[in-house]
Amino acid sequence: MVKFYLVRHGQTAWNLGEIFRGRADVPLDETGKKEVHLAGEALKGETLHAIYSSPLSRSMETAENIAKFQIKPVIPLEAIIDISYGEWEGKPVQEVQKNWPDLYQLWVQEPHKVTFPGGESLDGVRSRTMEAVKRLAKKHKDENIALVAHRVPNKVICCALLGIDNSHFWRIQQDTASTNLFTYKDGVWIISFLNDTSYLRVMGKLVLSDF
Amino acid sequence: MVKFYLVRHGQTAWNLGEIFRGRADVPLDETGKKEVHLAGEALKGETLHAIYSSPLSRSMETAENIAKFQIKPVIPLEAIIDISYGEWEGKPVQEVQKNWPDLYQLWVQEPHKVTFPGGESLDGVRSRTMEAVKRLAKKHKDENIALVAHRVPNKVICCALLGIDNSHFWRIQQDTASTNLFTYKDGVWIISFLNDTSYLRVMGKLVLSDF
Repeated sequence: MVKFYLVRHGQTAWNLGEIFRGRADVPLDETGKKEVHLAGEALKGETLHAIYSSPLSRSMETAENIAKFQIKPVIPLEAIIDISYGEWEGKPVQEVQKNWPDLYQLWVQEPHKVTFPGGESLDGVRSRTMEAVKRLAKKHKDENIALVAHRVPNKVICCALLGIDNSHFWRIQQDTASTNLFTYKDGVWIISFLNDTSYLRVMGKLVLSDF
Repeated sequence: MVKFYLVRHGQTAWNLGEIFRGRADVPLDETGKKEVHLAGEALKGETLHAIYSSPLSRSMETAENIAKFQIKPVIPLEAIIDISYGEWEGKPVQEVQKNWPDLYQLWVQEPHKVTFPGGESLDGVRSRTMEAVKRLAKKHKDENIALVAHRVPNKVICCALLGIDNSHFWRIQQDTASTNLFTYKDGVWIISFLNDTSYLRVMGKLVLSDF
């Protein structure tokens, strides 16, 4: 049995401002820093045998806040980096809606059909992330690991482990600093829980839009 | 937007003893009573416009522990009653394994192919529960409701709202007194969270098998 804790990074100014992040290396804001401390604390009762993170700093800092309770190093893992939004990166959603109205509508309605201009598709993200997930499931037999990544890779991994295609992308909610637990047992992936943010309630945080 | 809180009843002696429940009206045990108080308390910050429950007492008592924080009556809803396990009801899992070895194996491997002797199939449960879920989504437009049911109806509803067939039944974990939140928005079902049991941590509860 392998336990996979899949965590999303904490809040950045670009989550609040609804600006497409992707490969842009936006740091956690003050709220995000508090969130990831609480996310790490929520996992302190679990023994984690390894902690992997997207190499972008918002994920690495989240992972380090998990690692500090485990006395374990964080291993950067390029395969779970955020999607490349290409030309959309650094642009607020309103600007994207204005400049790419058809593509934006497609992203909202049929996200699996989108390849971002100069960037990636959800299928591309699915191939690279799931190759890593399967490899880690073999490597960490009978262990517990954490993977810290981003909204898009997390939703795509959730779809893949649920056995649904990327057209269901928007059905999976992933809040900042949320945790999912997948258990791999007897060749079957079980969702033990999804989008847990119960440990953030002490912050009295308002719910943001899914951005 | 409709928010659907889907709750599983608290623990009974037959969960601990791994005895098939189905339509047998097994009451909550002492642990179960504590669990459902905590589940109700966790929802007290939310305004629930209606609370529906399977008519079996383990669900009704769970629903009443949600209702006591809302000052709302519980509405019994036959459509979300537990699966009929037929001849398996009241029998411990070891006896079932001995007397129906092939059917038990099928239940573990390909649950969507099983019709219980003198009982129901997962497809039967899916038709009746989803008819109710769709009806309630129309009736409670822009409201928040709770549905309190059982392991099998809950897993089947989760599969249906995720867009996956009943062959994926075992991928969905549903612990006793757990809560799921589905948000119905612009014609799409979003899983906001799945199998939340964070409010039970104060009980220092051991994890049971999925029974």
